[in-house]
Amino acid sequence: MSETKGTRVVVVGGGFAGLATASRLAKEPVQVLLLDRKNHHTFQPLLYQVATAGLSPAEIAAPLRSIVSDRGNTEVLLCEVSGFDLERKIVFACGAEVPFDYLVVAAGARHSYFGHDEWERLAPGLKTVEDALEMRRRILTAFEDAERQAALHGHHDDLNFVIVGGGPTGVELAGTISEIARQALVDDFHSIDPKRTRVILVEAGPRVLATYPPDLSQSAEEQLKKLGVEVRTNTRVTAVKEHEIDMDNEVLPTAVTLWAAGVAASPLGRALGQPVDNAGRVPVFPDCTLPGHPEVFVLGDLAAFKDEQGKMLPGVAPVALQMGKYAAECIVADLQRQPRKPFHYNDRGSLATIGRAAAVAQFPKFKLTGYPAWLAWLFIHILFLIGFRNRILVMIEWAWSYFTYDRGARLITDEVGRLRERRSSPDSEVPGPVPMESVERRRA
Amino acid sequence: MSETKGTRVVVVGGGFAGLATASRLAKEPVQVLLLDRKNHHTFQPLLYQVATAGLSPAEIAAPLRSIVSDRGNTEVLLCEVSGFDLERKIVFACGAEVPFDYLVVAAGARHSYFGHDEWERLAPGLKTVEDALEMRRRILTAFEDAERQAALHGHHDDLNFVIVGGGPTGVELAGTISEIARQALVDDFHSIDPKRTRVILVEAGPRVLATYPPDLSQSAEEQLKKLGVEVRTNTRVTAVKEHEIDMDNEVLPTAVTLWAAGVAASPLGRALGQPVDNAGRVPVFPDCTLPGHPEVFVLGDLAAFKDEQGKMLPGVAPVALQMGKYAAECIVADLQRQPRKPFHYNDRGSLATIGRAAAVAQFPKFKLTGYPAWLAWLFIHILFLIGFRNRILVMIEWAWSYFTYDRGARLITDEVGRLRERRSSPDSEVPGPVPMESVERRRA
Repeated sequence: MSETKGTRVVVVGGGFAGLATASRLAKEPVQVLLLDRKNHHTFQPLLYQVATAGLSPAEIAAPLRSIVSDRGNTEVLLCEVSGFDLERKIVFACGAEVPFDYLVVAAGARHSYFGHDEWERLAPGLKTVEDALEMRRRILTAFEDAERQAALHGHHDDLNFVIVGGGPTGVELAGTISEIARQALVDDFHSIDPKRTRVILVEAGPRVLATYPPDLSQSAEEQLKKLGVEVRTNTRVTAVKEHEIDMDNEVLPTAVTLWAAGVAASPLGRALGQPVDNAGRVPVFPDCTLPGHPEVFVLGDLAAFKDEQGKMLPGVAPVALQMGKYAAECIVADLQRQPRKPFHYNDRGSLATIGRAAAVAQFPKFKLTGYPAWLAWLFIHILFLIGFRNRILVMIEWAWSYFTYDRGARLITDEVGRLRERRSSPDSEVPGPVPMESVERRRA
Repeated sequence: MSETKGTRVVVVGGGFAGLATASRLAKEPVQVLLLDRKNHHTFQPLLYQVATAGLSPAEIAAPLRSIVSDRGNTEVLLCEVSGFDLERKIVFACGAEVPFDYLVVAAGARHSYFGHDEWERLAPGLKTVEDALEMRRRILTAFEDAERQAALHGHHDDLNFVIVGGGPTGVELAGTISEIARQALVDDFHSIDPKRTRVILVEAGPRVLATYPPDLSQSAEEQLKKLGVEVRTNTRVTAVKEHEIDMDNEVLPTAVTLWAAGVAASPLGRALGQPVDNAGRVPVFPDCTLPGHPEVFVLGDLAAFKDEQGKMLPGVAPVALQMGKYAAECIVADLQRQPRKPFHYNDRGSLATIGRAAAVAQFPKFKLTGYPAWLAWLFIHILFLIGFRNRILVMIEWAWSYFTYDRGARLITDEVGRLRERRSSPDSEVPGPVPMESVERRRA
């Protein structure tokens, strides 16, 4: 490590937290290396729009390189991180040893099937662009299959869409699929019987949107029902099968089952060598660092952070964004030999959308439901979308689909049939430590 | 078959020819059933833009249902056609027997590897959205791999992009990839050595764009070289290997090899039970029908049609569009008991784009090269793009990328790791003939 090269900050994960850290450090005298196994940041709050064919992947995802391209101190590498050696201050990544002065681990979460991993194949979750494309393929293919069956044979199987989990993602998916079934696709599928097309939202707890106040849950449930969604609360799923779902008191045939019920933190949490909680999250100190490692931050969905009232912070984008910025500020404070302040989450409110012009919103001083909540949701999400270009395109898409009921991204593409081989990476031999000089910008 | 139900036209394939037939028949007293195994029409002339991350799939592909949704006499089914019984006037599709009065077979073409099918895995071609996404993934991943290698180890392997085939698609791919390598991505990849980044276009014949006049080929080659493409004419490929290509006089290491060298007509041509030519195309009469079957049209890339001078019509969009419209007019003429006119291809000119502001254009009375040719290409393609919505979005994308050198759709997504099972279709039992009544619109 050469003194003149400055402090080396390695960020694992290009989600909200990791990008916020890199952003806040852009003008500081540090070198940032951002590692992610995807080449793009995914705007997860809008993934359900890709899953339901309202938006294209490129409208809610942006290449990490183009996000950081104007920052002279940030390098991006497409890389799978396999582990850490915190004592030697090393990240094992792409078969190399990458040294750090500060480490920011913000690797996010995947969905969890509560010990039933075999359900994933039958009921995919929604965390990545690929997940969303898979959901889109299943939803559209189900309509096509029913249409073909009805056209050729005069009838079709029950076209039941079952969404497991009544959190924000489950509510968004159920509301939007019901809208597609009842409005937008009526024009296109002439043989499908609307009466045999149902959308069922299953929630194990007593109400949907359990993290919201009860009256907003109530409103959400009413708005869902108005859209034609059947809401089953207090209902546990006991088995997910091929074209069938078993619940406490009911067995339903299914065309598509989608999973929005649980999340588990990235396995990289365990790789830090500290105890993790039931959801795989890493308990952190009030400054978001690991015990005994003030130079190692764990952020976002991967962190188990209890606020001043002992309440666990939820795995949502605002928490991740604020944590990311906070970690960067801690690093800056260290460099300036200032004390770190503890992290405080500034909860500006929560919004959940339900469908076209339907939503609930909870702000610190007031609540909204229905159309006003939806407008608030729309503008906040567009404002937060990364990249001016995406903002414009998303606005056009939405304006278009709002006025025409058209869902423009309604393509079924399937790459599974494509033969493909990954280029075997010459990085697979493990070389020695990497001097940071070599990851400097050549043009600098 | 019920007389009151009108004439049944079954169209196989939702490409330019099939859609043109369905369009022209929209207001005629016939029933149209459009069968395709994809749910979308693909605007093939712009596929290379998806392959090179300039456009998103939804910008060059439109769901067939939304294209025909305002036509009361057209039904779309997502369906694999397995064969025909021309004597019984039956199409075998989705495990059912679909009867027809007229049959329009416009199933298009795939790429051909001249007996080396094992090369497909190593050098993908470009005919579908999935093909384009696979090319995009390989191109972007190659840049990421080289960047990571260089950043972690101080050097990277030769980053050679080899495009096989100097027709329009090969020229477009070579020019665009070279632009990406030399301009747009320089901002993003700081460790890659531009000197070790090469784009090589290999053509077995003596010149690129062999179907154009020699001076335009010459111009295209010069424009390619100006963009940094190495053009190897009179060079045959003898072997495609993992990370290597063998040519007559040269062996090159490769990062990505792309195939734009040959096409073979859909196997459905053979399934018609008539002799086919070397490329699998079906020789047709001057009215685009099969010998002995005036009710069976074969159109577009699948047809071997010789014009009045005995020249084979090329497999391009304008030929397919005109054939599609022509077949519909023959059907209308039959219904009105008028004689059919023979098909005449009205060649309005050809355009091939080479890169940003580079192209060649051949019109009946004049030729263009460079920027004017590119402008002509741009406007003609935008005008032809199906659907107003797409047109607007594509124009914004292009304006944006023209002024900013940004390539917005630069996402690497990979669905191969996703577990997925296809819903086993209940259509797989073969039922009896299908009464056309059952494919009528329910709402009618």
